[in-house]
Amino acid sequence: MTGQVRLALRGPIGRVTLSHPGKLGAMSRAMWRQLRDAFLHIQEDGALRCVVIDGEDGGFCAGGDIAEYPSFRFQPESLRHFHEEEVWGGLGAMLACDVPIVAQIGGACMGAGVEIASCCDIRVAGEAARFGAPIARLGFPMAPRELQLVAAAAGEATLREMLLEAAVLDAVEMKARGFLQRVVPDDKLAGECEATAGRIAQLAPQAARMNKRMLRRLAGRAADAELPAGLAQRAYDYATGAEHREGIAAFLDKRRPLFP
Amino acid sequence: MTGQVRLALRGPIGRVTLSHPGKLGAMSRAMWRQLRDAFLHIQEDGALRCVVIDGEDGGFCAGGDIAEYPSFRFQPESLRHFHEEEVWGGLGAMLACDVPIVAQIGGACMGAGVEIASCCDIRVAGEAARFGAPIARLGFPMAPRELQLVAAAAGEATLREMLLEAAVLDAVEMKARGFLQRVVPDDKLAGECEATAGRIAQLAPQAARMNKRMLRRLAGRAADAELPAGLAQRAYDYATGAEHREGIAAFLDKRRPLFP
Amino acid sequence: MTGQVRLALRGPIGRVTLSHPGKLGAMSRAMWRQLRDAFLHIQEDGALRCVVIDGEDGGFCAGGDIAEYPSFRFQPESLRHFHEEEVWGGLGAMLACDVPIVAQIGGACMGAGVEIASCCDIRVAGEAARFGAPIARLGFPMAPRELQLVAAAAGEATLREMLLEAAVLDAVEMKARGFLQRVVPDDKLAGECEATAGRIAQLAPQAARMNKRMLRRLAGRAADAELPAGLAQRAYDYATGAEHREGIAAFLDKRRPLFP
Repeated sequence: MTGQVRLALRGPIGRVTLSHPGKLGAMSRAMWRQLRDAFLHIQEDGALRCVVIDGEDGGFCAGGDIAEYPSFRFQPESLRHFHEEEVWGGLGAMLACDVPIVAQIGGACMGAGVEIASCCDIRVAGEAARFGAPIARLGFPMAPRELQLVAAAAGEATLREMLLEAAVLDAVEMKARGFLQRVVPDDKLAGECEATAGRIAQLAPQAARMNKRMLRRLAGRAADAELPAGLAQRAYDYATGAEHREGIAAFLDKRRPLFP
Repeated sequence: MTGQVRLALRGPIGRVTLSHPGKLGAMSRAMWRQLRDAFLHIQEDGALRCVVIDGEDGGFCAGGDIAEYPSFRFQPESLRHFHEEEVWGGLGAMLACDVPIVAQIGGACMGAGVEIASCCDIRVAGEAARFGAPIARLGFPMAPRELQLVAAAAGEATLREMLLEAAVLDAVEMKARGFLQRVVPDDKLAGECEATAGRIAQLAPQAARMNKRMLRRLAGRAADAELPAGLAQRAYDYATGAEHREGIAAFLDKRRPLFP
Repeated sequence: MTGQVRLALRGPIGRVTLSHPGKLGAMSRAMWRQLRDAFLHIQEDGALRCVVIDGEDGGFCAGGDIAEYPSFRFQPESLRHFHEEEVWGGLGAMLACDVPIVAQIGGACMGAGVEIASCCDIRVAGEAARFGAPIARLGFPMAPRELQLVAAAAGEATLREMLLEAAVLDAVEMKARGFLQRVVPDDKLAGECEATAGRIAQLAPQAARMNKRMLRRLAGRAADAELPAGLAQRAYDYATGAEHREGIAAFLDKRRPLFP
């Protein structure tokens, strides 16, 4: 069982659910591919007017599925393929989606979770939600496109705090930082997101799509946008490095990493 | 009577007032042209040190004058002319103005109001002010340059919420979002803006102009800046579309629009 | 005595202290050169994992050392040299530093202080800290690169308020504006920054360096980045102007400047 991304359609509103029982919605490689497929489907479906993305059982997404990491992270080529094809396949399909997307964030929103939320138009969280990207504990940096994505949505100050200090911030703080548009009591989260989707679904659908397309073009972050020349050139050379191996080994051994 | 934009000079301080009685300062085509003329005049007047822009009777600007829309919005060429020449004529003249501009926002600041406020250096609002751009109810998207302008001043998260959900936000929230520098009780708004203009008028005027010019060059949003090639190419093709007609017709008929 | 910038190393943590007794840490020309040297040293020292920058006696940096200004500010060439070589020498070395930098801001953080803080990754302030860039009182604008730097870190709305109105903002407000990540009681400031540095020092050091390098490349603000062609062309022509002379003369005479 490697988790799954489910898509459910109900009239003009779609729901994408990140499901990885026992792992708080952590994204496996299969889930990244399913995330891509879900959003390609949504983009093709001319009748949808809003999509809500959430995690199963009131959560969201706690990061990547670290158990899979040893099988591909320690070679630059397979690491590059993972980030540029699999992860960006999913995130890029979300960014390229013209249908408004609401993030319903009920629990841990870490690493991949922050990246997925950064692709959404409206971010609503319950008070219990927590946010971070503590991959420095795992001994590796954020991939270039993902860095650019989160910096744009969460701001550089917040991203630096998450990456360099492994800070974990709560929902009220992430609202103050401008990442979340709304924070509601946990038991009101589902209702608030349903109401938001309902409001969006009554507005002019082509106007929404045109606004999203133009914002994407203005930001120059279309899914197929090239990074500045050479930017990702050596971005994955760290694959074979000692820090990277130690961070992931320590996590899997349930011990504290040692970065001498 | 199609409203007017008045310019009053008092020593080193100018005041631009958006006046459209009974329409909460909504901008007519004539007013956009007058707004341009006012700021061209201000820019030429070497003695001015600060301009305050407000609405009549303690308001600001509730949007565009929708009664005029059927006469030009349903043809791509006249629609393009409206946005690129008339609206941008006014906003571009504000952005090109080297004199510091204070927005005194006392009431509805919607659509065109948010755009006009986005061209100001200091934005102060009374507690009763309300902000939004609910044009999705009218069945059309925001024009490209206007989108870029508001995204820069209000942030993408706020702009997406306003456009995709037709959200209306209050002054305290817009302060938290970073759009407003200050919120004051409604009965203190005029006094606070006057005091702000007075403070600005005592500082070095050429330094202010140099700072504004350099910020404009760094942001690359001079009034005459070209959008990325082709960006506005088909931006007005929606003029003849069904959503656009329905949204405006419904507003003028005082009924709820139906976007099937 | 023209002040000094001290560098102290303690294991993996460096501390840079801005010291100018009696002038609240105001940066002299000598201090800008020492700031550069300190960060070149830090960048070369492969063992460092975090740097904290603070001011002496619980302060930070109140600006530039205005007493020195008459000796070089009134000629375009020496003024350009000061900003582009001396000031940017220091700030550029901070921006080019791959080691995470924490700003410990305990008092006045004005002008040069805001610029130095803008080069840091994590900004923590005590409640008594104050922020501004009231150089319009001194009759001159902010230099182009410095403007770009502070706009990116503090946001344009805050920068315009500081430059055009000479606004001074407190720590709680600068937290709300997104410039500070944390505000703590004054007597907890040193402890909080020490704890932050300790947390950073336990995380993977190469991952931190890779993240900082990639963020710098994405932002295009490497220390050696060229400004857009011609942007600084005439940026220092104001050196000989009347406003500039009056502002600095008035400060040194301890009188109010008169900008007719």
